[in-house]
Amino acid sequence: MPLTEAAEAALRACLADRLVTSAADRDLHGRNETHFPHLPPDAVAYPETTDEVAALMRVCADHGLAVQGWGAGTSLEGHALAARGGVTVDFSRMAKVLEVRPEDMVARIQPGITREALNTELRATGLFFPVDPGANASLGGMASTRASGTTAVRYGTMRDNVLGLEVVLADGRVIRTGTAARKSSAGYDLTALFVGAEGTLGLITELTLRLHGQPEAVSAAICAFDAMGPAVEAVIATIQSGIPMARIEFVDAATVAAFNLRDGAGMPEQPHLLVEFHGSLAAVAEQAERFGEIVAEAGGADFRWAAKAEERAALWRMRHNAYYACLALKPGCQAWVTDVCVPISRLAEAVEETRADIAASSIPGPILGHVGDGNFHAILLVTPGDEAEATEAKRLAARMADRALRLGGTVTGEHGIGMGKLDYMAREHGEGWDVMGQIKRALDPAGRLNPGKMVRGA
Amino acid sequence: MPLTEAAEAALRACLADRLVTSAADRDLHGRNETHFPHLPPDAVAYPETTDEVAALMRVCADHGLAVQGWGAGTSLEGHALAARGGVTVDFSRMAKVLEVRPEDMVARIQPGITREALNTELRATGLFFPVDPGANASLGGMASTRASGTTAVRYGTMRDNVLGLEVVLADGRVIRTGTAARKSSAGYDLTALFVGAEGTLGLITELTLRLHGQPEAVSAAICAFDAMGPAVEAVIATIQSGIPMARIEFVDAATVAAFNLRDGAGMPEQPHLLVEFHGSLAAVAEQAERFGEIVAEAGGADFRWAAKAEERAALWRMRHNAYYACLALKPGCQAWVTDVCVPISRLAEAVEETRADIAASSIPGPILGHVGDGNFHAILLVTPGDEAEATEAKRLAARMADRALRLGGTVTGEHGIGMGKLDYMAREHGEGWDVMGQIKRALDPAGRLNPGKMVRGA
Repeated sequence: MPLTEAAEAALRACLADRLVTSAADRDLHGRNETHFPHLPPDAVAYPETTDEVAALMRVCADHGLAVQGWGAGTSLEGHALAARGGVTVDFSRMAKVLEVRPEDMVARIQPGITREALNTELRATGLFFPVDPGANASLGGMASTRASGTTAVRYGTMRDNVLGLEVVLADGRVIRTGTAARKSSAGYDLTALFVGAEGTLGLITELTLRLHGQPEAVSAAICAFDAMGPAVEAVIATIQSGIPMARIEFVDAATVAAFNLRDGAGMPEQPHLLVEFHGSLAAVAEQAERFGEIVAEAGGADFRWAAKAEERAALWRMRHNAYYACLALKPGCQAWVTDVCVPISRLAEAVEETRADIAASSIPGPILGHVGDGNFHAILLVTPGDEAEATEAKRLAARMADRALRLGGTVTGEHGIGMGKLDYMAREHGEGWDVMGQIKRALDPAGRLNPGKMVRGA
Repeated sequence: MPLTEAAEAALRACLADRLVTSAADRDLHGRNETHFPHLPPDAVAYPETTDEVAALMRVCADHGLAVQGWGAGTSLEGHALAARGGVTVDFSRMAKVLEVRPEDMVARIQPGITREALNTELRATGLFFPVDPGANASLGGMASTRASGTTAVRYGTMRDNVLGLEVVLADGRVIRTGTAARKSSAGYDLTALFVGAEGTLGLITELTLRLHGQPEAVSAAICAFDAMGPAVEAVIATIQSGIPMARIEFVDAATVAAFNLRDGAGMPEQPHLLVEFHGSLAAVAEQAERFGEIVAEAGGADFRWAAKAEERAALWRMRHNAYYACLALKPGCQAWVTDVCVPISRLAEAVEETRADIAASSIPGPILGHVGDGNFHAILLVTPGDEAEATEAKRLAARMADRALRLGGTVTGEHGIGMGKLDYMAREHGEGWDVMGQIKRALDPAGRLNPGKMVRGA
């Protein structure tokens, strides 16, 4: 339904001048980080309280309006785009830490706060929130997409680190899921249902997060391999040996070339592993030694340690900026960032086949990933407006997704479905996708929450 | 609906003589470990394949019959009792390990295998499945109740260790959830929805489990405290310090008295902590040293190590048999085992208040628990047939549940809802319970799957 005058007036009654219908603001909330079409909402709401979110949800229900949430806008699959217009709820004014309970190692927060801002606020407590997707995403968005990133191999994903939620449902009801206790067997796991639901079942207005103790010691290292196979074998051996890696990241030779170009990294243009260890001083030293042995056996070389905080920060800044570094490989290009995850035993095969596929194509595509989880990405570099290249990127991405399914994996390890992966849901889930549709219809019968996403015929 | 001749004939067409309607077998499947009424089904089915489960589900749908799953019958809340008769599906003939993939550290299993049988089969691989609720439960049952136990503080609960499921739905459709990849962002987390659903949304016919490496070194210890408060303070300090405890269990003085009586443990009748460390030799030594320092600071004493495998086995056998040891405190009695979980900061308060409550009551009730998770139990000892004692046990258990909610916790950390905790669902979840009902109606509109459980008006 379009935004009628009556609907707009009712929304203004809830939000006053925090309902914005200017072309500039709508335009901003219709943009995305990657190649999806520009899909602006009819209005942008900036609520400050859960009550306001509930009130606007009731108005949208009464007037048949679509509603989608907006965090930091860092999604790579167009999750927050307004496929059917309606109201985009921007959570930037709900970005507070509501409570930190150091003894329970939990924090209660609003959805709009970013992970970096949260960790800044936590610094004095000796605790931190570990999930790190690279981008400085909002926690509400990270929960909604079941984000993970470099540290998931040790600390888990958002699935593992969200203990409870407050959610505003399609009809304006407000529910609380979970508690501050560390576990529960009391009924269906609604927390897990809303984490990863991409705003299609409700809007998250509060999160109770599990925090972790800042490690006493941290050490990081980087090492080179002649080929991708031995690097992946080293990863498998490391995971199996039970070394509690905090991070274990793979970058291919093309990504290293990008680091060299942008950051003057001066690294040999070969596949590398980047790793980090967390623990007591003695534990970190032992882990590092054992990892060193595994790497040596696998033929790794050029081992460099980053024991100092500044060196580590530089290392992970370089890794996190890989996206931008890769963009610089082909000036003026746009990146299509793919995301698949496979069982670790199939990782070498998946990466090698992808590598060969890209090498035979007309576009560059550095490969990198969170290999401890079997999760990797290709950053496909496309000249904007070049239809042939766009078609080629689509073809390569589709083949990666197909390959992940063939190898028993998933079409997305961490980026989510959004607008980019809907076509794979039937193949990945079979009749399970219909079950998702049944749940969606039960909670959002009119299909107004983030329409066009997640379920069949959305 | 009663089991008509037509329905029975149709079920026999699926299962032949593996549909049993003998009084003895129905009786056995109507019994429970604790105080719930005897509620036998009209028939017991022993399927051997998923296809047979799907076929019997379709027959039950056609004939309006209730269906409940049965694993090892170790539930403490009457989960598997046939509240409305119908067919109980006993998974004892679906108890195979289907596949072990050591490189991926996953196993694909059937639901009827018990955790001990699984670990026996895994022994040669160097891997193990860590979730340990004490009883030798079936893995299907453990998944259905979101079980946990002594090792959850390190390895997580069934929520964390089930990667994927095969589920037969109420209408006989068969779906697969999850993959053998370690994470996914592809849609609603159906795996998490069925884990803990207590068979009210479908029957689990296969599980993909996450395995862990057998630790290189294991060490366990036991130490005494003058009072419960300092013991709990030591637990909080240990968790906060990041020592990766594999187990951290609390037993009160009454439980120790039971150990002394039954096992000749010769322990001082004071509160104790029982702990276990897993890791490399050096890591275990360091963890043990740090834990020793924390305990010394908290006033712990009589520290005894169990470094040898036999000593550890004896220690945990004693802990796992606490239920039977406590029964021996009051010959001829029956135990009502309660289960609550609170935020760790409220644990001392919750346990102390419970202790005082039981001390002022007419029945004994040793307290013990998985304190690293904030989860504890009272084993309330009731003379069978003594109405006054039963009333007292009910009152004490109700006050424990109330207390857990007041302190921000949950009415069950690991035993589940079953027939015992349904009355608390509205209070713990508020309108979230209605959402559970909406999901239940979407997937089981006739309310035939484990009726009488989980949802309002079931």
